[in-house]
Amino acid sequence: MKVLWSGRAGRGLDPALESFNSSLPFDSRMYEQDIKGSLAHAAMLRGQGLIDEKDFEAISGGLNSILDDIKSGALEFSKSAEDIHSFIETELTERVGDAGKRLHTARSRNDQTALDLRLYLLERSREIKAALAELASAIMEKARLHKDTIMPGYTHLQRGQPLSFAQHILAYAFMLERDRQRLDDCDRRTAVSPLGSCALAGTTLPIDRFMTAKELGMRPCENSVDGVSDRDFAIEFCSCAALAMVHLSRLAEELILWSSLEFGFIEPDESCSTGSSIMPQKKNPDIAELARGKSGRVFGDLMALLTVMKGLPLAYDKDMQEDKEAVFDAADTALACLRALALMVSTMKVKTERMLEAAKRGFINATDCADYLAARGMPFRDAYKLTGELVRECAESGRSLDELSLEELKARSQLFEEDYYRAIDLRECMRKRSSYGGTSPASVEAQLEILSKSALFAGEDFQDAPEDSPL
Amino acid sequence: MKVLWSGRAGRGLDPALESFNSSLPFDSRMYEQDIKGSLAHAAMLRGQGLIDEKDFEAISGGLNSILDDIKSGALEFSKSAEDIHSFIETELTERVGDAGKRLHTARSRNDQTALDLRLYLLERSREIKAALAELASAIMEKARLHKDTIMPGYTHLQRGQPLSFAQHILAYAFMLERDRQRLDDCDRRTAVSPLGSCALAGTTLPIDRFMTAKELGMRPCENSVDGVSDRDFAIEFCSCAALAMVHLSRLAEELILWSSLEFGFIEPDESCSTGSSIMPQKKNPDIAELARGKSGRVFGDLMALLTVMKGLPLAYDKDMQEDKEAVFDAADTALACLRALALMVSTMKVKTERMLEAAKRGFINATDCADYLAARGMPFRDAYKLTGELVRECAESGRSLDELSLEELKARSQLFEEDYYRAIDLRECMRKRSSYGGTSPASVEAQLEILSKSALFAGEDFQDAPEDSPL
Amino acid sequence: MKVLWSGRAGRGLDPALESFNSSLPFDSRMYEQDIKGSLAHAAMLRGQGLIDEKDFEAISGGLNSILDDIKSGALEFSKSAEDIHSFIETELTERVGDAGKRLHTARSRNDQTALDLRLYLLERSREIKAALAELASAIMEKARLHKDTIMPGYTHLQRGQPLSFAQHILAYAFMLERDRQRLDDCDRRTAVSPLGSCALAGTTLPIDRFMTAKELGMRPCENSVDGVSDRDFAIEFCSCAALAMVHLSRLAEELILWSSLEFGFIEPDESCSTGSSIMPQKKNPDIAELARGKSGRVFGDLMALLTVMKGLPLAYDKDMQEDKEAVFDAADTALACLRALALMVSTMKVKTERMLEAAKRGFINATDCADYLAARGMPFRDAYKLTGELVRECAESGRSLDELSLEELKARSQLFEEDYYRAIDLRECMRKRSSYGGTSPASVEAQLEILSKSALFAGEDFQDAPEDSPL
Amino acid sequence: MKVLWSGRAGRGLDPALESFNSSLPFDSRMYEQDIKGSLAHAAMLRGQGLIDEKDFEAISGGLNSILDDIKSGALEFSKSAEDIHSFIETELTERVGDAGKRLHTARSRNDQTALDLRLYLLERSREIKAALAELASAIMEKARLHKDTIMPGYTHLQRGQPLSFAQHILAYAFMLERDRQRLDDCDRRTAVSPLGSCALAGTTLPIDRFMTAKELGMRPCENSVDGVSDRDFAIEFCSCAALAMVHLSRLAEELILWSSLEFGFIEPDESCSTGSSIMPQKKNPDIAELARGKSGRVFGDLMALLTVMKGLPLAYDKDMQEDKEAVFDAADTALACLRALALMVSTMKVKTERMLEAAKRGFINATDCADYLAARGMPFRDAYKLTGELVRECAESGRSLDELSLEELKARSQLFEEDYYRAIDLRECMRKRSSYGGTSPASVEAQLEILSKSALFAGEDFQDAPEDSPL
Repeated sequence: MKVLWSGRAGRGLDPALESFNSSLPFDSRMYEQDIKGSLAHAAMLRGQGLIDEKDFEAISGGLNSILDDIKSGALEFSKSAEDIHSFIETELTERVGDAGKRLHTARSRNDQTALDLRLYLLERSREIKAALAELASAIMEKARLHKDTIMPGYTHLQRGQPLSFAQHILAYAFMLERDRQRLDDCDRRTAVSPLGSCALAGTTLPIDRFMTAKELGMRPCENSVDGVSDRDFAIEFCSCAALAMVHLSRLAEELILWSSLEFGFIEPDESCSTGSSIMPQKKNPDIAELARGKSGRVFGDLMALLTVMKGLPLAYDKDMQEDKEAVFDAADTALACLRALALMVSTMKVKTERMLEAAKRGFINATDCADYLAARGMPFRDAYKLTGELVRECAESGRSLDELSLEELKARSQLFEEDYYRAIDLRECMRKRSSYGGTSPASVEAQLEILSKSALFAGEDFQDAPEDSPL
Repeated sequence: MKVLWSGRAGRGLDPALESFNSSLPFDSRMYEQDIKGSLAHAAMLRGQGLIDEKDFEAISGGLNSILDDIKSGALEFSKSAEDIHSFIETELTERVGDAGKRLHTARSRNDQTALDLRLYLLERSREIKAALAELASAIMEKARLHKDTIMPGYTHLQRGQPLSFAQHILAYAFMLERDRQRLDDCDRRTAVSPLGSCALAGTTLPIDRFMTAKELGMRPCENSVDGVSDRDFAIEFCSCAALAMVHLSRLAEELILWSSLEFGFIEPDESCSTGSSIMPQKKNPDIAELARGKSGRVFGDLMALLTVMKGLPLAYDKDMQEDKEAVFDAADTALACLRALALMVSTMKVKTERMLEAAKRGFINATDCADYLAARGMPFRDAYKLTGELVRECAESGRSLDELSLEELKARSQLFEEDYYRAIDLRECMRKRSSYGGTSPASVEAQLEILSKSALFAGEDFQDAPEDSPL
Repeated sequence: MKVLWSGRAGRGLDPALESFNSSLPFDSRMYEQDIKGSLAHAAMLRGQGLIDEKDFEAISGGLNSILDDIKSGALEFSKSAEDIHSFIETELTERVGDAGKRLHTARSRNDQTALDLRLYLLERSREIKAALAELASAIMEKARLHKDTIMPGYTHLQRGQPLSFAQHILAYAFMLERDRQRLDDCDRRTAVSPLGSCALAGTTLPIDRFMTAKELGMRPCENSVDGVSDRDFAIEFCSCAALAMVHLSRLAEELILWSSLEFGFIEPDESCSTGSSIMPQKKNPDIAELARGKSGRVFGDLMALLTVMKGLPLAYDKDMQEDKEAVFDAADTALACLRALALMVSTMKVKTERMLEAAKRGFINATDCADYLAARGMPFRDAYKLTGELVRECAESGRSLDELSLEELKARSQLFEEDYYRAIDLRECMRKRSSYGGTSPASVEAQLEILSKSALFAGEDFQDAPEDSPL
Repeated sequence: MKVLWSGRAGRGLDPALESFNSSLPFDSRMYEQDIKGSLAHAAMLRGQGLIDEKDFEAISGGLNSILDDIKSGALEFSKSAEDIHSFIETELTERVGDAGKRLHTARSRNDQTALDLRLYLLERSREIKAALAELASAIMEKARLHKDTIMPGYTHLQRGQPLSFAQHILAYAFMLERDRQRLDDCDRRTAVSPLGSCALAGTTLPIDRFMTAKELGMRPCENSVDGVSDRDFAIEFCSCAALAMVHLSRLAEELILWSSLEFGFIEPDESCSTGSSIMPQKKNPDIAELARGKSGRVFGDLMALLTVMKGLPLAYDKDMQEDKEAVFDAADTALACLRALALMVSTMKVKTERMLEAAKRGFINATDCADYLAARGMPFRDAYKLTGELVRECAESGRSLDELSLEELKARSQLFEEDYYRAIDLRECMRKRSSYGGTSPASVEAQLEILSKSALFAGEDFQDAPEDSPL
């Protein structure tokens, strides 16, 4: 294995341990960030007179040619390198000679790897934000079409009150909006350059950390020990991803329930369904199931990172090499699930007639009956009790609340009048819930408006986000 | 058990299940928030003409008397109530009659419990922020005294480069500063009122959700289904606490290492030490060990909450009753550990002579030797290699790098001159690392200045935080 | 705080840290085990001549009186004691004088607390095993009644093949049987006495560790350092509990689905249901929801313990005081959920007509149609394909597979004959799946027989398990 | 993508979802198990007359040729297949025609994939057991050499009592022994064949599940629904791996501490060390750090699996496809860490003189002083107190306990005699701790004997474990 650290060591690692020790198989993902960071570092070294113009030209030419060659496939990652930093530095020195050896002036792999991971996660964050917007758009599109589609709203998976389908699924858009906010907050803490922290103590050379940081769209960290030992940004990224996966697992659960014959509220498109190798009739909502199941791996990634960092003494410990695979997996998973569900939501067929049919059973206007009485002066707790009795009566006689005669009602309370029937009409019940954030079509319109102006669609870059998010 | 939901149900829960179902033993913690929320709700009901003045007076008088009685101990939580909401509403109705029954107008326990938890966590967040500042202050106080105290900086728990003790421990202050930032961000998302979401769909009554929210220092949520189904804020709170515990576990690990006879860098005060029941000589750093161990329970709390919410269909499910104990435990634990470590850090004795002694062994100025050569024109990689050979030579002959004669040095490279000895003097090595964020005393002073103006000391309330944190 | 370790220490803990340090609030649970262990230890000390008869009488008399007084409530746990061991030893010395001070001969709190926890968990394990049997019995009772009750078997929550309700729920009994097996295995490793390991190195006194261990139904551990540093048994206990909670969460999910109006396969008894404070018609399956949600806390407990133990140097560290609350919570939770679900399952009403109705839609006999063709010589993959086409045709024309005429069928394949209709009759499909472990009534009978003779009902005590410990 | 389930579905998955849905990239690992299972299934089908001899010959010939071709690299996994089962079945049918289409008779991918994973994990378990024995052997080898090597035993990372290095590290061998036991227990529950459970309900065909199971070294599962929905074995495997990683992380932590200049108890071999790219003097214990850090990923894998299975309705859900990567990673990680640490332990240099030097400071014979007094009749608590005072006195005057004169001692207690000095001699203290499991050389010999006959070296195969499955 080509290593950069043969200083005092003699023989080097036992060959049996090389793959155990090597991070190249996974940190090679960050080659672009590694080169980007090195270019900024080299420019600063030249600016400060720490390398001369000629060396700088050699270094930047070499790095750019390496970048091109990796991208084109002309240069493959050699299995004999220990990590992406060693790989590129070794390759550079082979290409440009002594100038390459000067690149590592006032730098250590400790600050270099921290920088690379930060730059890389900012990129992935950008992609995830775009995917959040994509799924939110698919949801909002459906909501626009279903402001008047009545479905039963559930609590405890029991039918509770009438809801528009729009109102129900917009709840998910607001969850995604918070996911975006959290990523923006996380990005602000990720966009901090550790470069110049060197091994752990800073350097005696006259570097300019603000210059490098600015070049990379960052600010420099304030303490060199913190610079190389901090992995908060990776854990916070995983926390954001885990919370997003909670949301996706909930949406997925509902898509699965709704796809069942029992609910029948949606029909997933064939492009999002699979069958069975043995049961010819099956059409399964696999995409949603996978998204639900994949929440597990992201929770696991978060737990992995927390455990890795628990109890580590400062500054850098090799345990921290374990930071990457977990956070890469969390990013990949969240991104893939967002995109898959966006496709599933945007192509699914909403079966409005089945929703309405379901809304008609289950006494979901019982609260409105109680509210009717409360509005006429009966204390709510008494109105609630009386309605409960009416429901029991209806259940026993196989009727719904609108099938009770006014006579029967008046026998219970003189507060009942003819307008009762309108008060408990499902569509009315839904439309009249016009309190801010309620299920009425007007409220749904307002929500769509708020969402369209929210951080979700503020551009992919955290720096584009409004100073203080309207939400 | 006194329940509020006997509507349709007949017999009620099997007595064997009452304690399984009851949340009073833990949600009674939130009595103050529950009453605060009810007072705001009642004021709004009156403002909107949904209850009359007389009822409002009865309700607010009743609630305030209940609050007083709980605080004074005159009113104990009855084991027969199902939850804090039922307990207080039942008690209120007993005290003020029908007016009490009107309080639940346009409200459900679904929005009520979500509100209570939000208000409660904002309180705990305030306390934790104060404790973050307390520990940061203890650290900064030590840093002020030890800007010139040389210790070996470590990577891989191997001595690496000279560091001031101030520089080392200030890394923790910056971690705490980020913890504060994250709590501020979390608070912004917690300070959102679900009140008026009612069961899940909003209400048909002409409520004013902005009025209640404003009274409570919040803004209203935008979607009623989201209002009752969202527990993001609790999970995010736990994520913040878990990350803070990562920091505390690292600090604790170091305090334990430093307290060992082998390191001997600090001596914990007797007020923070315990002994053994069988080994009379023992003086153990229990406080730090407990803080390190308690990271486990907070990670567990976070995992618990993520699991609870995974795959739950909207809107409210009873599983969500499990939200409280986990987040309460996370808050309690983080708070207790912060306070305990603040005491330990502020009272510990720093043994500067042991630190210096350790700095003298381990060739921690080897990087400076390499830098010396690099500054004189040798490519860094070659300088690194040559220094490695010098270190090997010294190790074999039991010398340190400053014990090599200029003659010996020149035999290796003509770049060595008399100023070599000053260049690798430990104190010089430390002082010269004056790059931004480096270990030099001047840099430490600058860091202390930055910290003192940071969010950490911006007041306990997130609303007092500067619009955009300087960090 | 009364402490046992004032040896070298002077002032003792800062009062602000006492509650942080104290374990009495939770380890007082183990008072009976602590006394049991002390009695066995004292008997051994006497047997080996390390204390005299008089001291032994005083100690055993004193311990038994303390036990009685705690049980009767006459003796309360003083808040000023550090832990249950200190509390009892101090109380003992107050009662019997110098003899009490001799009890701690050849013992340390390190081996004492490990022993107490082992004894305590063996007790809880016994209770959980009884509860596993209780839930399994409730399931088996229902299975006995529903061997012929047809329901649709599901994969991907899509109807797949006909199943008897008995077959479906017996799957849970087999899960519980494995839970029992795992607890038996765990118990075998828990029933190991650390007593005599003392602080960490064993003792110079002529103790007989086999004697104490035998008295407690254990074998002695083989290495004293392992004796005080091992918490495997607690983690393994939590793993067992976590896996049991996976099973309970799955059962709970199904009970919730089945209780929905959409499925309607069961009706939970009123004694296991609750209502809503605002929606009078609600009848919610709270018990099942709580059991599902509580899986989170047990997963969290497991994660907490793993984290606590990660990276701890030998032998004892104070972090390990964090072992108890997590494992206590896991045990309490698993026990409560098992009992609650046993009650829910045994009292629920199975709605066989709704199950049958569901079985008739969804083409769940499509596999049988394919099997019919395969049995007549068509390669299975071709039979599968042809059946898929028939299903599509039926779906479009709103028919089920038994509504296709023989003529239509023969047009597709000459292999179809009149016996096709019997082959795809639902009851026949269920009965004919008589392969070992299949859904036929005969197979269900055999499963019930196997279960009734399984470890589940082998008695609650791990000591009934075959004696085969390899060590 | 080549799929087996085009029955009712039309277009098939959106190309953008194919990689999201496909499991081939990871389940192709199980190709050997998949073929092994198919061969056993085909043999049974022939035995039961469900396929004829000719078809059987074609199938078994085809499968064996596929196996050979995969092994030799002649056949590559086509990216267009959905999973390993589809890949092999499709390939088989291409090779042998209609006979290949008959292989899936009385089988579904649901039972097939469960079988494959079980067979695969039994293989990995075998390897891990061998690696457990390998590390245990390395530890035992060191223990044999260091039965008389005195080191300070630690609690709270404070020096406590004299210990032999052998006694200390043998604690790890006993942990590994328990890891082996747990894997044996897990294997017993893994070696259960789901084959014949088919999709979920068993089959109407006259299969012989005992025959297939026996061929594979298993017993058949008792309930078909359980057969396809059970992943306990994978979770239990992860639990075993997580607990093993707890042990390895503890050993790693100690290796790291011991490698520090401060402790200096061991020197890792160069073949297990790395250096720094910037600090030429560094020699880092990376292997141990990686092993410690990798505990995180295995904890995460366990959490992932628990989360995936939480709340899943029976029988099979696509979420369960997420079972493989987590358990594969746990197995790979545990195996690699065991092997790496075995190499590190067996090659490290034990620095006995540094251990002895450390043992001489820290009053680690204070317990022996107290025991000395207790053995002469002073109540232990009083002896403890007096020794504490002596320690304080020595600490103040810079002496150790054996530097107190008999006169000074007698001034404290007349129980002190000349034999005191021998009683507190470190070597004596260590040798006299001859209680069972104590640190004396004789006890260590006995422990080595016990270990050498333990399950650790009982052969790698679970089938050597005693036959006592209760089912």
